[in-house]
Amino acid sequence: MLTNRMPDDPQYYIKGVLEGNRRILAKTITLIESSHPSHYDLAGTIVDQILPNTGKAVRLGVTGVPGVGKSRFIESLGIMLVDKGHRLAVLAVDPSSRRSGGSIMADKMRMEKLSIEPNAFIRPSPSGTTLGGVARKTREAMLVCEAAGFDVIIVETVGVGQSETEVSSMVDFFLVLMLAGAGDEYQGIKKGVLEIADAVAITKADGGNIENAGKARREYESALHIIAPPSQTWSPPVVVCSALEMKGINEIWDIVIDHRNKMTESGELEKNRKKQMVNWMWALIKEGLKERFFGNPDVKRLLPKMIRDVENGIKAPTVACAELLFFLDNKSFGYKKHA
Amino acid sequence: MLTNRMPDDPQYYIKGVLEGNRRILAKTITLIESSHPSHYDLAGTIVDQILPNTGKAVRLGVTGVPGVGKSRFIESLGIMLVDKGHRLAVLAVDPSSRRSGGSIMADKMRMEKLSIEPNAFIRPSPSGTTLGGVARKTREAMLVCEAAGFDVIIVETVGVGQSETEVSSMVDFFLVLMLAGAGDEYQGIKKGVLEIADAVAITKADGGNIENAGKARREYESALHIIAPPSQTWSPPVVVCSALEMKGINEIWDIVIDHRNKMTESGELEKNRKKQMVNWMWALIKEGLKERFFGNPDVKRLLPKMIRDVENGIKAPTVACAELLFFLDNKSFGYKKHA
Repeated sequence: MLTNRMPDDPQYYIKGVLEGNRRILAKTITLIESSHPSHYDLAGTIVDQILPNTGKAVRLGVTGVPGVGKSRFIESLGIMLVDKGHRLAVLAVDPSSRRSGGSIMADKMRMEKLSIEPNAFIRPSPSGTTLGGVARKTREAMLVCEAAGFDVIIVETVGVGQSETEVSSMVDFFLVLMLAGAGDEYQGIKKGVLEIADAVAITKADGGNIENAGKARREYESALHIIAPPSQTWSPPVVVCSALEMKGINEIWDIVIDHRNKMTESGELEKNRKKQMVNWMWALIKEGLKERFFGNPDVKRLLPKMIRDVENGIKAPTVACAELLFFLDNKSFGYKKHA
Repeated sequence: MLTNRMPDDPQYYIKGVLEGNRRILAKTITLIESSHPSHYDLAGTIVDQILPNTGKAVRLGVTGVPGVGKSRFIESLGIMLVDKGHRLAVLAVDPSSRRSGGSIMADKMRMEKLSIEPNAFIRPSPSGTTLGGVARKTREAMLVCEAAGFDVIIVETVGVGQSETEVSSMVDFFLVLMLAGAGDEYQGIKKGVLEIADAVAITKADGGNIENAGKARREYESALHIIAPPSQTWSPPVVVCSALEMKGINEIWDIVIDHRNKMTESGELEKNRKKQMVNWMWALIKEGLKERFFGNPDVKRLLPKMIRDVENGIKAPTVACAELLFFLDNKSFGYKKHA
C-alpha cells in the first residue's frame, strides 16, 4: 500500500494531474480510493480545485453481463480510439471487486493490447463496502482523468445490483451490450437496464452467430420501442458488432458522436451534466445521513430487535421509526435533549 | 375540519375500529391523515395496537393513466365482490390530490353505485406534500380497514411519478390497466410499471375496440416476456376486459385468487409481507432523516447557493456535502461541537 508515502500537499497532486503526469494521476486516484480519513479530505480538496479543468471528455458507460465480451469490446473500441488520436481512460465500477495487486494484474491482462498503449490509462474498480462508495470514487477518478487530458472516458460495469444506474448517472452515453442466443431474454436483461440505454449492441455477431444476432437485434428494437419511447432528440438504436472481426465498432463510435452532437446542440448535454452534479451531491448527502444513522450506537443496539418486531407484526413500522429517530436525536452526541 | 373535535383516548378509536363502526373508522383515518403533531402520535398508538388484527385481507393495487377507465373498472369489480359477500375498502394514492369536501364528493360521485353499498367503503386520497406522506397515510388506512373487517382492500393510484412503486410495495397483487389503440405505447407505459405488474388488463374491450384490444394484448404479452421473466410461482398474464359489458372482470378476480393461493402455498405471500413491513420502516426512517436535514436552519440558508455552485462546477459535490453535513452535526441543536 502507498498510503503512508503520500505527500500531503494538494498542490503536488493538482500540478501533476494538470501536467498529465501518469504516475501522479495514478497516485491521486489511489488517494481518492483510500479509506483513510486524512486522505478523504485531501482528495476532496484536489477534486474541488481541478473541477474547472474537467468536463471536456466524452463520457461513455458500458455494461453487460459476464460472458458478453465486454473486455474484448472495450479493448477493440479503445485501440480504434487511440489510433484516431484520442487519449482514453477506462475505469470500472464493480461493487463486488476487491482491490489487490492480483486484480490489477488481471485487469491489465484482460486488455493486454490496450494496456500497453501510451495514450490509454486503465484502472480497475476501486474496492468499497457500498456501491455508493465505489461510485463516488469512480466519479472523482473520472474527473481527475479529464483534468489530466484524457478526452474519452469509458466507465464499465458488470450487471450487478444497481451499478448500471450508478454508471448511467455519471456518463453522457450509456451503452448496453447484449448477447444473442436462445434463452437470453432470461439471463441477459436486467430490470430497467434497457430503459437507461442510449444504444444496445448485440456482441459476438460473427461466424455461426450472425443470424442469431440479427434476430436479437429485431427483438430488442421492438422491446425498446415499447420500453423507452424516443425523445425528440434521440431514439436508442440497436446494432450488431463483433470485436473479434472489428465489425460494427466504428459504427458504435459514430453513434456516440452523433448523440453527443445532437445533445450538445439541443442543450441537453449541458443540462444533463448539471443535473448529474446536483444528483451526485444529493446521493452523497443521503449516504452521509445513512452513515450517521447506522453509526449511532443506540441505533446499532436496538435495530436487530426492531426489525424482528416489525417483521412479525408486533410493532408498527411508524412506532419503530419514531423510537429509533428519538434515540438518534437525543443521544447521538451523548446528551439528552429533555434532560 | 374535524381536527378539533377528535377524542384523544386511543381506546375510543381502537374499540370502534375493531367493532367495525364505520363512523369511527372514518374518524380514525381522518386522524391518520391529519398533520397535527398530537394526532400523529395518537394515530401511531392506534395503528400499533390494531396490528394483531390486520393482515387477513386481499390487498390489490390498481393503476392506470387517466382515461383508462379505472373508476369504472374498480366499481364493476367492487360490485361483483360485494355481490359475492365480500367487504371492500377502496383507498387511493394520488400525490397530486388536495383534500377538500369537493374532492370527496367527486370521488363518491365517480363510483356512484359502489358508494351506496353498505359493504363498500370508499376513501379518496389523503393530501400530502410528499408522496412518502401520502403513501404512509394510505398504508395505515389500509391496516385499520383490515382491522375493521374489510376482507378486500383495493388501493388505486394514478400513473404519476413513483406512485405505482409505492402502491406495489403495500399490496399483494399489482394490476396494471392499459388502453388499447394507436400510439399508446407512447402514452400508456411508464418506465418500470410493467416490471412490477402481476397482471395487465386491457380495458374498454368492447364495440369497435375489441380487435385493437386483442392486438394490444399480444403486444404486451411479448413485452412482458422480455421485461418481466416469470418466476417459478407466477408469470404475469395479460387479459382484456370491459367494465361496460362486465366482461373479463370475473376472470381478473380469479387471477388474483389464483395468485394468492400459489403465493400462500409457496410461502412468498408471508415473506413478501414481512419484507414490505421492514421496507416500510426503512422508508419512514429515510423520510425522517431527510426531514431533519431539510428542516435544519443552516442547511436551509446554505442550500440554494450550494446547489448553484455545484451545478456550475464551482464547488465539488463532495465538498458541498461535507460542508452541509458539518453544519447539521455541529449546529443542529444550537451548539458547536468543537466550540
